[in-house]
Amino acid sequence: MRSILQPGNEPVYQRLANLIERMIAERALRPGDRVPSVRQFSVQQRVSVPTALRAYATLEMRGFLEARPKSGFYVRARLANFDPPRAAAVAAKVTDFSHTDPFASLLADFGAADLVPLGGAVPSAELLPGPRLARIMAAIARHSKTAGNTYDMPPGAETLRRAIARRSLEWGCALQADDLIVTVAATEALSLALRVTCEPGDTVAVESPTYFGLARMLRELRLKALPLPVDSATGVDLEALPRALHRTRIAACVVNPNFQNPVGFLMPDEHKRQLVQLLAARGIAIIEDDVYGDLQHAGVRPRCLKAFDPDGSVILCGSYSKSLAPGYRVGYLAAGKWHERALALKRISTLGGATLPTLAIAEFLRNGGYDRYLRSIRQSYRQQVERMRQTIAESFPDGTRLSRPAGSFLLWCELPDKVDALKLSQRARQAGISIAPGPLFSPDGGFRNFVRINCGHAWSPRIECAVGLLGQLAKQMSV
Amino acid sequence: MRSILQPGNEPVYQRLANLIERMIAERALRPGDRVPSVRQFSVQQRVSVPTALRAYATLEMRGFLEARPKSGFYVRARLANFDPPRAAAVAAKVTDFSHTDPFASLLADFGAADLVPLGGAVPSAELLPGPRLARIMAAIARHSKTAGNTYDMPPGAETLRRAIARRSLEWGCALQADDLIVTVAATEALSLALRVTCEPGDTVAVESPTYFGLARMLRELRLKALPLPVDSATGVDLEALPRALHRTRIAACVVNPNFQNPVGFLMPDEHKRQLVQLLAARGIAIIEDDVYGDLQHAGVRPRCLKAFDPDGSVILCGSYSKSLAPGYRVGYLAAGKWHERALALKRISTLGGATLPTLAIAEFLRNGGYDRYLRSIRQSYRQQVERMRQTIAESFPDGTRLSRPAGSFLLWCELPDKVDALKLSQRARQAGISIAPGPLFSPDGGFRNFVRINCGHAWSPRIECAVGLLGQLAKQMSV
Repeated sequence: MRSILQPGNEPVYQRLANLIERMIAERALRPGDRVPSVRQFSVQQRVSVPTALRAYATLEMRGFLEARPKSGFYVRARLANFDPPRAAAVAAKVTDFSHTDPFASLLADFGAADLVPLGGAVPSAELLPGPRLARIMAAIARHSKTAGNTYDMPPGAETLRRAIARRSLEWGCALQADDLIVTVAATEALSLALRVTCEPGDTVAVESPTYFGLARMLRELRLKALPLPVDSATGVDLEALPRALHRTRIAACVVNPNFQNPVGFLMPDEHKRQLVQLLAARGIAIIEDDVYGDLQHAGVRPRCLKAFDPDGSVILCGSYSKSLAPGYRVGYLAAGKWHERALALKRISTLGGATLPTLAIAEFLRNGGYDRYLRSIRQSYRQQVERMRQTIAESFPDGTRLSRPAGSFLLWCELPDKVDALKLSQRARQAGISIAPGPLFSPDGGFRNFVRINCGHAWSPRIECAVGLLGQLAKQMSV
Repeated sequence: MRSILQPGNEPVYQRLANLIERMIAERALRPGDRVPSVRQFSVQQRVSVPTALRAYATLEMRGFLEARPKSGFYVRARLANFDPPRAAAVAAKVTDFSHTDPFASLLADFGAADLVPLGGAVPSAELLPGPRLARIMAAIARHSKTAGNTYDMPPGAETLRRAIARRSLEWGCALQADDLIVTVAATEALSLALRVTCEPGDTVAVESPTYFGLARMLRELRLKALPLPVDSATGVDLEALPRALHRTRIAACVVNPNFQNPVGFLMPDEHKRQLVQLLAARGIAIIEDDVYGDLQHAGVRPRCLKAFDPDGSVILCGSYSKSLAPGYRVGYLAAGKWHERALALKRISTLGGATLPTLAIAEFLRNGGYDRYLRSIRQSYRQQVERMRQTIAESFPDGTRLSRPAGSFLLWCELPDKVDALKLSQRARQAGISIAPGPLFSPDGGFRNFVRINCGHAWSPRIECAVGLLGQLAKQMSV
């Protein structure tokens, strides 16, 4: 074994690169760790700065390190080299999600403080700027005795609608404040969107797998579901879609194009355009759930389906629950041609939301706080997702397949065929861990051997242990 | 004319009483003014304390003064000696409130800051403890980095549900925390109550006149209305009710028994009992809107219909929007036998409400702040209502009839037949005043010559002028 003191024939930069590679292999350096700066490394190793830099560049090329702007070089989660989970063969059969009825107890667990929180799609409140937002609320209340304690009548605070409209340019839209309705988070937005476009008994096309909250919504609104197969990289299968639409009359199609829950795909822009054209041409309402859109791990903010809307057929639903403030319940709706109807229904459903939380979020958007915060939370989510993938790689059974989302904080994990995810989640529950089993996300009981894992919490020994234990449980079940 | 320096034959106390009475008649003392304390009065008039007290007692008996505990004697609004507005002859005909569709612009005016706010049923934020509640929110957020920024999952914060359950003893109920669901104010509570008890096309019995928000709700939910005549003192006419029910199949009956909006009646307990028995025996859901119940002007808190509920047939809807915090959107629902269904529908409608406002109100209830605040706001509302009645007495046309509510802050005013309330409200609008015309409250376009007047704001010269002007406009229209 070579050592730094016994150089061989290879170039110095290569020798240094091999040294770091070995440290990674031996887990002295672990994924997510920052390596010394180029300058520190050159001093430590008594080489020139260009040589140190070349060593790091080599490691970057080999996929062991990655450079982060203004931050330095970090060890990449290279071991977590999974195949993506497979799309399920979806029978294009209308269903009613009735099999998900008994899952209420599972969902209740997602909020239990005593369980390791890998179940719910919930960012950790520790990472969120709760105290800062609360200070903004307090300042608004101090500044005006009355501002925070009057009704915020629909369509809702203009300051917020204007701030969201400005942001919409980044999504490829050019919404006006008047296009928007402030809602009690995305739940109310989606609920209103379904109620204005569908009648009880209608069929709604949904991604398979899809968000279980949507399943619950369809069930309560007495709507049926037509599951659409999705590709784990590009989302709704555009070739299968026309056939499905040909067979079944559908009133609306609900899509979560950006970092989909649970699969994590980011639908390419060209797919978005085609999907919208295809549905709008058939007079089908397109309901877009964009709650994860602000959470790309790198690069630009993805576009919305709404950016490709030819005629008001797309209803955009968003919120700040996943990116900023789950407890504030502030979301929005751009309902296109259903705007007036949605406004009328909003008036009788809740009238307004809580005024101070709405004004506080508007101010945080306006004063640049949200953009600054997003830069840090995106990095946190990326690191947490990487860490989780790495730990799964170390502990889960062979044959496990895992998503590699480019945004948000959710992993979709396909376990070996023999593993029953519902049983796994029961055993995990007994061990004090909550996870979300695949059938929760299935319109028809599929995804039996899938689980969704929440990476919204800062990495901790408690989470690391829990994932290790999950892996053991899964291994026991896979033999 | 007698003077204090030229006493006649009458006893001294009577002479003093007459003196004060004359000052009231000549408006030197005005309704709501405090007269000197008994001790001061005895010193001023050079009489003994018992004589001064006897003079005041005489004035009290004659209805000119009223004693307020620990505060002294005040001039009563005695001139405002109106007959109550009449009940409309209600044709027991099912309607759909379609005539109220064009009123959206009127409702929009209720929130306009540049209008004198006599339209909306909105307490002034100036009177409400907004800053105190905001400080409680800030303290909760400071105390725990995470408490205020996590989801408050249905049925909602247990601290709040426990506090409400404790209060329910005062309403004649003995609710448990588990009977309650926290809602986005009473709007969501009523909306859920209608959705769990009715199907589109069903008929709902409503008071005539009734809250226009309910009219809007029925219209949007595609429910029809069966108007029930109400007595201006006792509420729903219990003799007419069985006949109406005999003719029409109704799914639910919505009642606002305590300080009804707009009429202001307080349904007597015996009527409440009979109403509930009558409806429950026929399997009709009773939806109780109790948003004004905490606002009695004197005496004990009235009971709820829910207190007489034999079998879970009463759905109680309440909120803190009228008594504490319109901007916080915190209400509740005790849905009786529809509890599970309401909980399921709540989950998909909004999931939870804003967490910090909910926790702040829970804390304000728990620490006794709300009860202390109620004592002062009840007095304010009573004085404001009295002041308004007095000013109406001075400026409105002869033949005006006016409610005398024992709680809350709304007056229901019947103008002479010739006055068209919709036209009056247009002219008032041009003069910078918002009022709520009677047809807004009517299931079938009636109450043409009625208006509802909001007394939720602290008395001010601006309001006094506005009421005087309203009176002039009404007089012009009544000749």
